Amino acid sequence: MSDIAVTLPDGSELSVPEGSSVEDVAYEIGPGLGSDTVAGVVDGELVDRAAPVHDGARVEIVTDQSDEYLQVLRHSAAHVFAQALQRLYPEAQLAIGPPTDEGFYYDVTGVDLDEDDFPELEAEMRDIVEADYDIERRELPREEALDAYADNRFKTEILDEEAAGDDPVTVYEQDDWRDLCRGPHVESTGAIGAVKLLSISSAYWRGDEENEQLTRVYGTAFESESELEEYMEMREEAAERDHRKIGREMDLFTIDETAGPGLPLYQPAGKRILSELSDYAESLNLAAGYDPVETPHLFRTDLWKKSGHYDNYVDDMFLLDVNDEEYGLKPMNCPGHATIFDDNSWSYRDLPVRYFEDGKVYRKEQRGELSGLSRTWSFTIDDGHLFVRPDQIESEINRIIDDILTVFETFDLDAHVALATRPEKSVGSDEIWEQSESQLEDVLDSQGMAYDIEPGDGAFYGPKIDFSFEDALGRKWDGPTVQLDFNMPERFDLTYTGEDNEDHQPVMIHRALYGSYERFFMVLIEHFDGHFPLWLAPEQVRVLPISDDNLGYAHRVKNELDGFRVEVEDRDMTVGRKIRAAHDDRVPYMVVVGDEEEAAGTVSVRDRFEDERNGVDPSTFRAHLEAERDEKRVEPDFVARSE
Amino acid sequence: MSDIAVTLPDGSELSVPEGSSVEDVAYEIGPGLGSDTVAGVVDGELVDRAAPVHDGARVEIVTDQSDEYLQVLRHSAAHVFAQALQRLYPEAQLAIGPPTDEGFYYDVTGVDLDEDDFPELEAEMRDIVEADYDIERRELPREEALDAYADNRFKTEILDEEAAGDDPVTVYEQDDWRDLCRGPHVESTGAIGAVKLLSISSAYWRGDEENEQLTRVYGTAFESESELEEYMEMREEAAERDHRKIGREMDLFTIDETAGPGLPLYQPAGKRILSELSDYAESLNLAAGYDPVETPHLFRTDLWKKSGHYDNYVDDMFLLDVNDEEYGLKPMNCPGHATIFDDNSWSYRDLPVRYFEDGKVYRKEQRGELSGLSRTWSFTIDDGHLFVRPDQIESEINRIIDDILTVFETFDLDAHVALATRPEKSVGSDEIWEQSESQLEDVLDSQGMAYDIEPGDGAFYGPKIDFSFEDALGRKWDGPTVQLDFNMPERFDLTYTGEDNEDHQPVMIHRALYGSYERFFMVLIEHFDGHFPLWLAPEQVRVLPISDDNLGYAHRVKNELDGFRVEVEDRDMTVGRKIRAAHDDRVPYMVVVGDEEEAAGTVSVRDRFEDERNGVDPSTFRAHLEAERDEKRVEPDFVARSE
Repeated sequence: MSDIAVTLPDGSELSVPEGSSVEDVAYEIGPGLGSDTVAGVVDGELVDRAAPVHDGARVEIVTDQSDEYLQVLRHSAAHVFAQALQRLYPEAQLAIGPPTDEGFYYDVTGVDLDEDDFPELEAEMRDIVEADYDIERRELPREEALDAYADNRFKTEILDEEAAGDDPVTVYEQDDWRDLCRGPHVESTGAIGAVKLLSISSAYWRGDEENEQLTRVYGTAFESESELEEYMEMREEAAERDHRKIGREMDLFTIDETAGPGLPLYQPAGKRILSELSDYAESLNLAAGYDPVETPHLFRTDLWKKSGHYDNYVDDMFLLDVNDEEYGLKPMNCPGHATIFDDNSWSYRDLPVRYFEDGKVYRKEQRGELSGLSRTWSFTIDDGHLFVRPDQIESEINRIIDDILTVFETFDLDAHVALATRPEKSVGSDEIWEQSESQLEDVLDSQGMAYDIEPGDGAFYGPKIDFSFEDALGRKWDGPTVQLDFNMPERFDLTYTGEDNEDHQPVMIHRALYGSYERFFMVLIEHFDGHFPLWLAPEQVRVLPISDDNLGYAHRVKNELDGFRVEVEDRDMTVGRKIRAAHDDRVPYMVVVGDEEEAAGTVSVRDRFEDERNGVDPSTFRAHLEAERDEKRVEPDFVARSE
Repeated sequence: MSDIAVTLPDGSELSVPEGSSVEDVAYEIGPGLGSDTVAGVVDGELVDRAAPVHDGARVEIVTDQSDEYLQVLRHSAAHVFAQALQRLYPEAQLAIGPPTDEGFYYDVTGVDLDEDDFPELEAEMRDIVEADYDIERRELPREEALDAYADNRFKTEILDEEAAGDDPVTVYEQDDWRDLCRGPHVESTGAIGAVKLLSISSAYWRGDEENEQLTRVYGTAFESESELEEYMEMREEAAERDHRKIGREMDLFTIDETAGPGLPLYQPAGKRILSELSDYAESLNLAAGYDPVETPHLFRTDLWKKSGHYDNYVDDMFLLDVNDEEYGLKPMNCPGHATIFDDNSWSYRDLPVRYFEDGKVYRKEQRGELSGLSRTWSFTIDDGHLFVRPDQIESEINRIIDDILTVFETFDLDAHVALATRPEKSVGSDEIWEQSESQLEDVLDSQGMAYDIEPGDGAFYGPKIDFSFEDALGRKWDGPTVQLDFNMPERFDLTYTGEDNEDHQPVMIHRALYGSYERFFMVLIEHFDGHFPLWLAPEQVRVLPISDDNLGYAHRVKNELDGFRVEVEDRDMTVGRKIRAAHDDRVPYMVVVGDEEEAAGTVSVRDRFEDERNGVDPSTFRAHLEAERDEKRVEPDFVARSE
C-alpha cells in the first residue's frame, strides 16, 4: 500500500499509509493524541475519528480540548434526548437531530409534547447520561439499514437521497438504542456533563413548507453543570433583552399579519434611531470620499442574469411577471451600482470611485424562519461599492477596516474577524486569488488584528473579511464585511482608461459598516437593553413638572433644549410615578422642575441610574447634552455616579 | 312640456323647457350669448352646443372667449389634419384624434409617415383652413353609421363599445369629409388661426400593449399665428431644458434598458440634489411636529383589500405570488401608515398624530407612456399622513398650506390651486362632505388664495386641494396635495379615546409638499435649466488654478471651503477652457487662483453670469456661501451684476 500526504493545522505535511483514518493520523502524530481523539475536521468538515483521509486532505484532530468538541458532545446529547423520548414514548418517530450553535434540536412526530413533559424527559436523559453507555459506531449494509428503518419514512428518505451513494451506511448505538447517523459522537453518554431541554416549536420536514409539519424540541448540553448554569443565566438575561419584547415596550417597530410576515414597519421611535444610524454611516462615508447613489427595488431579471446572481440566488428572490417579462425585487444592491458606474466613462485618475446607498433588499427566507428583526424578508444594507485600480486595493481595504473599527468602538461592541479564502467553485486566476488573499492578510496583519482563517469560505468571486459583533452578553452576530470581487467587473465589462490610454478592468470591493440595519438594530437593542446612547435615544430628555403649576416652566425648559428630542410629561400623576414612567420608557435624562427650580431658574437632572444633580443652569445642561450627543458617548455622564 | 332648472356658473338657477339644448340655455340667458355659443360644459363635461341639458344640470356656455375654446378649436384641428391626411393618403385609416393640453394627436394606420411628410400635410391643412368649410354635426342611425364605417375596425369597435347605447350617433362633416365624433367643434375650419404638426410616435390602440400598434401624429393649433410662434419658441426653450438632456449632461440619473424601463437609478449628482430636497422637507416636517416612519415596499394584498385600493388600483399594481399568497408592491404609502397608527393606543390629547416618509412606490404605467422622470414605474412620494380629531381639520390644513406655500416660494415657482369636490361615487355622509368641503373653502378663502373649483374631482374618500407648479416657461405640473379621508379610518377601524372615554374615529389627512420627487426633480431641472440654487447644486464651487504651480494653493482654498461641495480642476487645460468647462457643468461659482492670488492669499470669484470679483478673502467668500446656502437663495449673488 502506498503512502498519502495530509496537511496539519500548522501547515506541515504528514505521510500516512493510504486508507488511514483520522484516528490513525492522530496516532501517527503521537500516541497520546491518538487515544484522546474524539473526532476530526477533514477539509473543513467535522467527521468521525474512523473517517478515512485522502491524499492532500487538510486534517485537524478534535479532542475534548478542541473548539469543536462541544458540537460533538451536543450531537450526542441529541441522541440521548431521542433515546429518552423513545423510552417514554415508544410510538415517537425520529426525523433529524443536529447540533446547533446553542445546543441541539430533534425533529420528531407521532407524539404530542409540550414543555410540561420536559422534567420527565430530562430525568430520563440524566439516567442515560449516568449509565454512561458506550456510544459505538457500526457500519450496516444499505439493504439492512433500509430494512431496519422501513417503518420510518424520514430515515428511509435520508437513505434514498442524502446517503444514496453510501454502502455501508453508519449507525451509532448506545445501550439497546441506535440512530442512523454520520457522527461524530463522544465516546460514551457519561461525557455529557449537563443537559437541558429549552423549548418546542414546529418545523417542516427539510424546511420545506410543502412538507409535513414536525415537532422540534430544542435542548442544550455542556461539559459541566456550572457551564449550563452560566448559559441559562445568559439566556434569561437575553430573554429580558429580547429585541421583540423591547421593541414592543419602546414602540420601535411593528410586524403586522395583514401587511405580511418578515416585513417590519418602523414606528417613529424606531425610525429616529435608524435615521441617526444612517446619518452616522453617511458622515463616515462622505468623509471617506463616497458618493451617494439611489437605485430602485424592482429590476428586470436580465440584470441578475448579467451579474450572475440569477444562477446562484434565484430561489431567494421575489419574482414577478410584468408584460410577460420576468422582474425581481433586488436581493443585493451591487448590480445597480455597477450599472451606474457603467453609465459613465472613467479615467485612471478618477479611481477609486466609491458609491454608497442605504438599499432595502428583499430575500425570500423560509416563512417559519422569520423572526423579529433578526430574520426578515426586507432589510436595508448600508451598502458600499468601490471600483478601484489593482494598485489601490490595499489602501482602500485599510481605510474600510479603519471605518469598521470606528463603528465597533462607537457602539462599544467587540469585534471578531475572519478571513474567508478561495472556495472550490470560484472565478479568477490563481495569481489574482493568491495576490488578493495575501493583500487581505497583509492588511489584517498590519492592523495588528487577531483573526481566524476560514478556508474555502470566500465568495465565488473573491476572498472576504467578515466581522462579527460581540454584544454585552458575549453573543456573536454577523456584521460588517469587506469583499474583493473580480467577477462583476468582468460580467458588466466595466472599464477605465489607464495611463497607457488602454481600457482596463477595475476591481470591485463590496463593503458594509453595519451589514443589515435590521440585524444591527436588533444587536443594539439587546446590547444596550434598550438604553440607547443619548445620540440614538428616540426621546432624549423628559421634563417632569412637580405640579401642574410648573407646566409653563417645564415648556420653557423644553424650549431651551431646542434641537434635542424632549417631551414634557403632562399627565396627571405623582412625581414618583412620572419618574418611574420615564425609567420604564428608558429615557436617558429626566429633568425635574418644581417651584424651587422655577424660582431659581434652574433644573434638577436625574439619569437612568437614578443619580441626581440639583440647581443646574439649563444652559450648562444643554452644553453637556451637546457634547455627549456629538461625541456619541455610550452612557449618560452629566450626573456623578453615587455608586 | 314642463320646465326644468339648470344651475349657471354664478350659482343662479335658470328655468328652461324640458328638452332644451346648451344653445337654448344660452339664448334664454341672452340672444348675444346664444349666437356666440360654440359649445357647453354640462356637469363638468365639454359637450356640443346641441347637447340636451337635464334637470339639475350645472351648465356653462363656451364661447370663443372661454378657457375651453382652445380645446374645441384643437379638436377641430385634429379633424383638419385627418382630412388632409386622407386627401393625400386615401388608404390611411383613422383611429382616434382627441385634443390634448398642448394641441392634439391623431392615431392612424395604413400609411407610412415620417416628419419629412409634415410640410406637405401642413400645406394641405392650411388649404382646408383657408377654404373655411362649415363644420356640421349630423346624427346618423346606428345601423347607417355601422355600415359607413364597416371597413374601419377602430370606428366599428367604438360604435360597438363606447357608443353602444347611442342611437342615433353623431358625425361631424366638413367639405366632403366626415368623422365619427361626439364633438364639440368650432363652426368652420376658418376659425383655426394657425396649425403645426409636431412629432410622430407609436401608440397602442386603446393604450393596451396587447393591441395593434398605430402611428400617432402630434400637432397643435391656435387662434393666431403669433400665439403659435410664441408656443414654438417656448417649445424650443423647453427642448433645450429637457430634463432628459440636462440629466445626461449633468450625470443626474440613468435609465438602463437591462435594468428595466421606468426605473430611474440616481447618479451621485442627482442623489445629492434629492438628498437636499429630502433634508429640506424633513426640516419642515420636524418643525411642524411630524414623526418619521418607514414601511417596506412589499405587502400582502390583504392590506390593499382592507384599504380599498385593491378594488380601485389593482390594475396599476405590480403583483406577485409568494407561497401561494398574493403580494403587491405598494402603489401608496397610506395603508402602511394606517397600520402603524393602529398598532398604538391613542388618547384625544395625543392627536394630531403626524407621520412622514419618503416612500418609494411602484405603479405599473403603460410602458409606452414611460418618459424620463416625468412618467416612471418607481417614484418616491414625500408622503405625510395625519390622524386628527374633526375639530382639528381646519387648523391642520392651514398649517399644511403654509408649508406648501413656503415650498413654492423657496423654489421660485408659481402656484395654481384647485379645490376638487365630491365625486359621484363616494363614501361618507352628506353632512360630513358639506362640512369638509366648506372647511377647505374657508381655509383657502382665509389664505386669500385664488383657486378653481373642480366639481366632482375629489377622491372617493374625501375632497382635496391640488396644487400645480408653474415653471419659468409657464407650464403647469401636478404638485402638492392635501386630501381629507373619511374612508380609511373606517376601513382600518382606527380609534382614539375621547375626553368622554369613548372610542372615536379620527379623520385622516393625506398630504405631500412636493408630490413625487421624480416629477418635482424634473420640474426643477427644467425650471432652473439645470442652474440649481447653491444649496442644491451637486458641485457648488470649482477652484480653477491658472497653472499647475497653483494646484497646492487651489487645494488649500478648497480646504477653507470645507463643508461645501468643492472640486479642484486639475486637468491640463487653459484657464479659458477651465472656465468654459465649469460653465458647461453649471457650477454656480468658479474660484480662479493664480500667482497673484496665491501671493496675496486671496481668490477671484466668478459666477455663472460671467461676472467677477477679485482680491476676495476666502473667509469672506465662505461667509457669503454659508448665507446663500442656508437662506436657500435662488441665484448666486456674491458678485455684483455688471449688466
